[in-house]
Amino acid sequence: MVANEQEFVVTPWEVRGEIDYNKLIKEFGTELITNELLKRIEKHTGELHYLLRRKIFFSHRDLDWILDKYESGEKFFLYTGRGPSGHTHLGHLIPWIFTQHLQEKFDVELYFQMTDDEKFLHNPDMKLEESLKYTYENALDVLACGLSPSKTFIFSNIEFAKTLYRISLEIAKHVTFSTVKAVFGFENNTNIGMIFFPSMQAAPCFLPCILKGKNIPCLIPAAIDQDPYWRGIARFVAPKLGYYKPAQIHSKFLPGLGKGGKMSASEPETAIFTTDPPEVVERKIMNAFTGGRATIEEQRSKGGDPDICPIYQYYYFLFEPDDKKLMDIYMACKSGQLLCGEDKARLAIRVKEFLIEHQRKRKAAEKILDKVMLRD
Amino acid sequence: MVANEQEFVVTPWEVRGEIDYNKLIKEFGTELITNELLKRIEKHTGELHYLLRRKIFFSHRDLDWILDKYESGEKFFLYTGRGPSGHTHLGHLIPWIFTQHLQEKFDVELYFQMTDDEKFLHNPDMKLEESLKYTYENALDVLACGLSPSKTFIFSNIEFAKTLYRISLEIAKHVTFSTVKAVFGFENNTNIGMIFFPSMQAAPCFLPCILKGKNIPCLIPAAIDQDPYWRGIARFVAPKLGYYKPAQIHSKFLPGLGKGGKMSASEPETAIFTTDPPEVVERKIMNAFTGGRATIEEQRSKGGDPDICPIYQYYYFLFEPDDKKLMDIYMACKSGQLLCGEDKARLAIRVKEFLIEHQRKRKAAEKILDKVMLRD
Repeated sequence: MVANEQEFVVTPWEVRGEIDYNKLIKEFGTELITNELLKRIEKHTGELHYLLRRKIFFSHRDLDWILDKYESGEKFFLYTGRGPSGHTHLGHLIPWIFTQHLQEKFDVELYFQMTDDEKFLHNPDMKLEESLKYTYENALDVLACGLSPSKTFIFSNIEFAKTLYRISLEIAKHVTFSTVKAVFGFENNTNIGMIFFPSMQAAPCFLPCILKGKNIPCLIPAAIDQDPYWRGIARFVAPKLGYYKPAQIHSKFLPGLGKGGKMSASEPETAIFTTDPPEVVERKIMNAFTGGRATIEEQRSKGGDPDICPIYQYYYFLFEPDDKKLMDIYMACKSGQLLCGEDKARLAIRVKEFLIEHQRKRKAAEKILDKVMLRD
Repeated sequence: MVANEQEFVVTPWEVRGEIDYNKLIKEFGTELITNELLKRIEKHTGELHYLLRRKIFFSHRDLDWILDKYESGEKFFLYTGRGPSGHTHLGHLIPWIFTQHLQEKFDVELYFQMTDDEKFLHNPDMKLEESLKYTYENALDVLACGLSPSKTFIFSNIEFAKTLYRISLEIAKHVTFSTVKAVFGFENNTNIGMIFFPSMQAAPCFLPCILKGKNIPCLIPAAIDQDPYWRGIARFVAPKLGYYKPAQIHSKFLPGLGKGGKMSASEPETAIFTTDPPEVVERKIMNAFTGGRATIEEQRSKGGDPDICPIYQYYYFLFEPDDKKLMDIYMACKSGQLLCGEDKARLAIRVKEFLIEHQRKRKAAEKILDKVMLRD
């Protein structure tokens, strides 16, 4: 049934997901990462990262061009970011883990933007100090992913505003209200800070070029929902400013622990935060929705449905990078051998172990945080 | 006919002007500066400044409240600014001369904003470096007006963006596109930098409060065309942020050397720039429109019309602060005693003398410029 890796990747989640993601690709006008492109990447990285192998990073713009440039000796830089509106959850880590991988394998710089201005502007109840606090709090999670302290530059839009505002002015001059209305669905009652913000978000695409006085290719690893920023603003403006259009590589979303939907901080019981203590992690996982049957007897006889099960997805996205072992979990569930309670308990152990280690790295990151922060 | 000062102020220019200015006052909802208010000011400043006496500063918002505060021991600060799109002309100096007067008499601080961001955003051909260059160039003219180096703080929006962006975010969160559309006539094709700019323009109203951690009354001396910024944005947002609404005192415009209209840098032959060499000043004045007759004979017999004459207006706005002497010029023109050529030649001498002195002060200001500039 799912006897080889190729088919194995195509789970109902993936299929269900894939329908949506294919639609997104068409709507956004991005391209699927082909096996040919994966082979080109493999040449440079060695064995493919599981996030590519499993097509969790599945879509791109100009990734082939980035490789052309790289192969002709022109290194790119990485740019990604985070909207610091609260604690980091596991879903946020996926692009950062992949970014760390790219940084290490291609030996490139990373510019990491904390959009604390946007989070403040967007959320009526958020105070500026609060989003700024989360900038520093979340930056520890970013660094805990193992990024190189000498090649990573993190900045808060609020605290790096002198540098960013200047670049944003150059961008904003080419972007009208009509454009941001079409791209982001802004309305007449949108506040003027949010209206300006897309130019702040686009600014880091050109920041290293300005800092170093030369054109440098930019690759943005991010979840696909961020695509409009780059398509509608940065890629549109880049040629007008004499810069390369930023290339992108897009990921899918880690699902939440409930039934369907991506992991979201706004539903805290279905999201695991990196700061959650072990007993909270355990409770959230034990309360998760699964693809299990109504009774143990039914599960034993008919088997579970890993394809719609967030527990399985957690192994798939984060907690079982070994494809063989992942397949074993899948088959054990399908065959009725593995019951949901046991499956959850095993995942809880993995997640708790992961978080103990992550929290240790997070603590260690406190020492280097100041060094990697860009400030005016 | 114009035997006393009261009537004397009411020239056709003034009348013509007054009709418009009265309309502006009604449209904007500001208040005329009454003689009663002038008397209150006189108590603190001694003899009234000619710009108040001649009602060149003629309108206000909450000036009485500023005096209440001042008299109860709560000092205000002054805030004004300049859009550095080119060289400074004589028309720009009027609010600055008056600001210097207020600073000296009330012994208060001045925060002076250079809106180099707006000038860059507004003018398609303007480069960022160009408007930034004019910030420094124009700042010398500001300082040449005799402002106190220890109580004057000049800043470029581009170079002080870290501090200003943070305050602007707090403002922008309360201002929608609908609002800036209504207040400034922005359209869907307005660029998103211009749309955000009103929050940068409003930020200095609260800057000293933030720097000093207390609420401080703000008085803005500026030409009346700047009123929408304060009415529509700063005064609207102030109570939401817990600050006083900024008070304002509004001036009329120095006319250009052509027939009608305010002095404008976009018509360089009708504007005298502070950097103009003497021969250029002379040429511009000698080529000016006047209220003179077609022939010398006619002028001698019928007299000139100073009320529509920019030459006379230059004495009135800037070059003859002595009311008695101003009246003499007026009468000599009216009676046909004074011919236009002679009138122009005399003014040219005054302007050249003024500019020699201004350029000397401008040169001297180079030494203190760095000291008064606020930067992040």
